[in-house]
Amino acid sequence: MADAGAPVLAIDIGGTKLAAAVVEPGGRIAVYDRVPTPNNPSMDAEGLWRTLAAMLEKLLAEAGGPRPAGVGVGCGGPMTWPDARVSPLNIPAWRDFPLRDRLRETFPGLPVRVHNDAICLAIGEHWRGAGRGRDNMLGMVVSTGVGGGLILNGHLIDGASGNAGHIGHIIVDPDGPPCGCGGRGCLEAIARGPGLVNWAREQGWPGATGVDLASDARRGHPVAQAAMRRAGRALGLAIASATHLCDLEVVSIGGGISQAGALLFEPLEETLRTYARMDYARKVSVVPAALGQTAGLVGAAALVFEAERYWSAD
Amino acid sequence: MADAGAPVLAIDIGGTKLAAAVVEPGGRIAVYDRVPTPNNPSMDAEGLWRTLAAMLEKLLAEAGGPRPAGVGVGCGGPMTWPDARVSPLNIPAWRDFPLRDRLRETFPGLPVRVHNDAICLAIGEHWRGAGRGRDNMLGMVVSTGVGGGLILNGHLIDGASGNAGHIGHIIVDPDGPPCGCGGRGCLEAIARGPGLVNWAREQGWPGATGVDLASDARRGHPVAQAAMRRAGRALGLAIASATHLCDLEVVSIGGGISQAGALLFEPLEETLRTYARMDYARKVSVVPAALGQTAGLVGAAALVFEAERYWSAD
Repeated sequence: MADAGAPVLAIDIGGTKLAAAVVEPGGRIAVYDRVPTPNNPSMDAEGLWRTLAAMLEKLLAEAGGPRPAGVGVGCGGPMTWPDARVSPLNIPAWRDFPLRDRLRETFPGLPVRVHNDAICLAIGEHWRGAGRGRDNMLGMVVSTGVGGGLILNGHLIDGASGNAGHIGHIIVDPDGPPCGCGGRGCLEAIARGPGLVNWAREQGWPGATGVDLASDARRGHPVAQAAMRRAGRALGLAIASATHLCDLEVVSIGGGISQAGALLFEPLEETLRTYARMDYARKVSVVPAALGQTAGLVGAAALVFEAERYWSAD
Repeated sequence: MADAGAPVLAIDIGGTKLAAAVVEPGGRIAVYDRVPTPNNPSMDAEGLWRTLAAMLEKLLAEAGGPRPAGVGVGCGGPMTWPDARVSPLNIPAWRDFPLRDRLRETFPGLPVRVHNDAICLAIGEHWRGAGRGRDNMLGMVVSTGVGGGLILNGHLIDGASGNAGHIGHIIVDPDGPPCGCGGRGCLEAIARGPGLVNWAREQGWPGATGVDLASDARRGHPVAQAAMRRAGRALGLAIASATHLCDLEVVSIGGGISQAGALLFEPLEETLRTYARMDYARKVSVVPAALGQTAGLVGAAALVFEAERYWSAD
């Protein structure tokens, strides 16, 4: 048995960086480290694993203190769940990589719990951020993709395969642009960073990234602002549908695009209030995510600390 | 304490009829009765209550046997939840009527649990119908309105105010017709019976009701068939969005319109398969509701028999 005050080892695996932290029971990050994800074409599955394992070993040595109570992980999808054979879209070296099994071998006897990275962000926001104390919340990430996690009746919703919360594929325009999923008019097809960037470049905006676009919108660039209105309207429609279906109290939005502030949130609110008209749905509030870069690590730790709320699997 | 084999008194309150049954622990209906809802303009709240109370008294006398373990009720919305002050759209005599309190006074010491009628239908289908044994299901009713109930991670989802599952207000066409909710392009605005009937009459169909429309569609009336295609497409879009968001395994559809059979389900499936393209969403199955007229009573009984799964309130 881990002692009651033992920390959790939290890991966040994305296409840009591998991050890890020793997280205390209250959610405070005691020790943190990260390295760029080694994503060069010659990288193989074992090489990437060794990079991660070395970072974890160094981190735990630095932390000292009691043995962790468990290991919580957020990882880019898709993955099988809960056994977490992972195939992150942006990490070609791992295809069907048995992440949960490998971590169990490395940390024998400890619970190892892996979930989608967007779901861990939503859990983080629910446990210690914008959704604290609310029982019905959607935590969204609007970035290279559009993802999220659902907490309903006070518990994380996994769905049939661990994919619940994936608001990016709510259809907001049946005649809209093709989506990477093979469908059409999904929220993600319109509001994801690269989608907005492509649209803005077609209209003459000279930048390259979603974060640049948000920044230029704040500085008054008219095309960048129009792109944010476009994203805001799509987000407002999807949130109206999700709120009607799930009777949400609060929706948090994180990710690079959300840094556009009012330029995104004002058209979002206007659209939401136009379409979310049932009495119960009018009460929903949409807020920027409260936690920063470490939200995913905090959420991953909660898979262990707050299993009753956030972990429904074995 | 009620004994383990005690039945439940189940009640279904709608604009057309008041129904009640004594339901056995396995879900079998032992005794059943119904009366037309006394909805004449002179009917007042107490008169309607007396009609209901008299029917319940007669039913229990007829049933004999052990005292019920509790009372489960499905009632047309809206209502406050879980205290169930009800204002059913189609029962003008009851506005903010304290249904739960009145039933508690009538049956002192017994648990009394009231939920939306569409949610009770979904529970019935999950417990003993099309969703049996599945953990992630949406049970829909397509009738005068379009409603539903959500079971996720094996539990009924209530949401912030007991309104979760209300798929009727997912937006399927942002530029679509105005909806009774004040919004636009909601599934309900397009697919509810009166909406389809109005649309078909504008195209020259001479009938009057949704059930007639379904029946004429089966007999080959081209406008009636076109109306069913229109409903099927709207349903397919909404179900695609709900499946992506909630990672559903099964969706059941009941209500008068669903009697159109393949004429409704084929365009629904075609649209669903066009838009629900994420791997996990392709697995969803959409099926007609398996239980008949008594599904709502079976579901209402489950609020008591299977409280761990279906009743999250006090």
